[in-house]
Amino acid sequence: MRYELYYWPGIQGRGEFVRLVLEDAGADYVDVARERGGMAKMTRALDAGLGALLPFAPPFLRAGALVVAQTANITRFLGERLGLAPRSEAGRLAAATIALTIADLVAEVHDTHHPTTVEEAYETQRPAARARAAAFREHRLPKFTGWLEDTLARNGDVLVGRSVGYADLAAFQVVEGLAYAFPNAMKRRALRIPKLLALRDRIAARPRVAAYLASPRRLPFNDSDIFRRYPELDPA
Amino acid sequence: MRYELYYWPGIQGRGEFVRLVLEDAGADYVDVARERGGMAKMTRALDAGLGALLPFAPPFLRAGALVVAQTANITRFLGERLGLAPRSEAGRLAAATIALTIADLVAEVHDTHHPTTVEEAYETQRPAARARAAAFREHRLPKFTGWLEDTLARNGDVLVGRSVGYADLAAFQVVEGLAYAFPNAMKRRALRIPKLLALRDRIAARPRVAAYLASPRRLPFNDSDIFRRYPELDPA
Repeated sequence: MRYELYYWPGIQGRGEFVRLVLEDAGADYVDVARERGGMAKMTRALDAGLGALLPFAPPFLRAGALVVAQTANITRFLGERLGLAPRSEAGRLAAATIALTIADLVAEVHDTHHPTTVEEAYETQRPAARARAAAFREHRLPKFTGWLEDTLARNGDVLVGRSVGYADLAAFQVVEGLAYAFPNAMKRRALRIPKLLALRDRIAARPRVAAYLASPRRLPFNDSDIFRRYPELDPA
Repeated sequence: MRYELYYWPGIQGRGEFVRLVLEDAGADYVDVARERGGMAKMTRALDAGLGALLPFAPPFLRAGALVVAQTANITRFLGERLGLAPRSEAGRLAAATIALTIADLVAEVHDTHHPTTVEEAYETQRPAARARAAAFREHRLPKFTGWLEDTLARNGDVLVGRSVGYADLAAFQVVEGLAYAFPNAMKRRALRIPKLLALRDRIAARPRVAAYLASPRRLPFNDSDIFRRYPELDPA
């Protein structure tokens, strides 16, 4: 099975959560919009639908006759097919819940630099961004990362079940993104989230993840993306 | 099976999407925090976890030994168990995708009155709320409701499959909420979303939904909730 991932070609974005599952599983996939003619193919799918679904936005994934969108939904689908999810129903539901909560955190990170509208550039909404980022650093970042830490303290070396799954890969990506966007805030949090940082390190050392991170397939973080490093949003 | 729903007692909120599935299915359930002693029970679950899960926030649901959180995840779980979801995998994935996209819309509605921080009252963030609500009315409300309309145009009388499911119940609730919070903006949209409004009417007329809406179990919309009617955020 060759999976087709549809996502914007120049950023990690939400697509990265899907790429990490495909890469860690060693799955055969094509990153459609990064291929020649791929953007036109993605645009057609957004305009006319694909299979049973009219996607609202990228990322979306085609797996033969199946089409699925929404990041946490895609990673659940792939994780359960590719051995990166718990086997029990209780574990599968917990993994889905954790991945969706990480997706909420990602949306809140996005809104630190776009608190008013996605239609206009960051530079048009700087004062609102400063206020939202301050509240994010003070309240939301501690709440979300603290919850991930507590979840690890309850469960063990991984967020759910006994082996690494898609929820852990999502935690890796969000911690990497937060360290890029909010290096000062994350440094101040480090002593409170040792288990989460250890999980990040263990994921980064997985052979297929390490190979992916060192490859040109891994796009660098950049300031057109969800995680952006604006010093005024993360004072020392 | 008696389901236990855990959600804040005074508002429809995100819990309402779960209540509608339970009610339409005629399921046996208890709305835990609205019972005597229920708030303490919910607080304990948030502090100490419940089953395999440490919930990040309400709503969450206990179904015997299973615990699930995240609104769209709960409604998928219930919908698939209670006959309110497609049978095919393609249909199930499409329903999950649609419900998650509606959850994104709900989060954006919330942020029209809390664009800066959930830690402080609306009144402390009014200028930012005006700007965010204007962008929401102009861009996001048309995009989301237009996408639901297009999805109905592609599929038929319901959003996915051939009969009403949890995604349709979610669409009903979000249209009701938008009509409460943004009556002027929704009036201006009405001619563009006839299929979506017809779906809303068909859902409201389903016997169990109609009985629920007329019962004291259905809390009224109010301005401590996600959908709030602030005239300055919805000018005529």
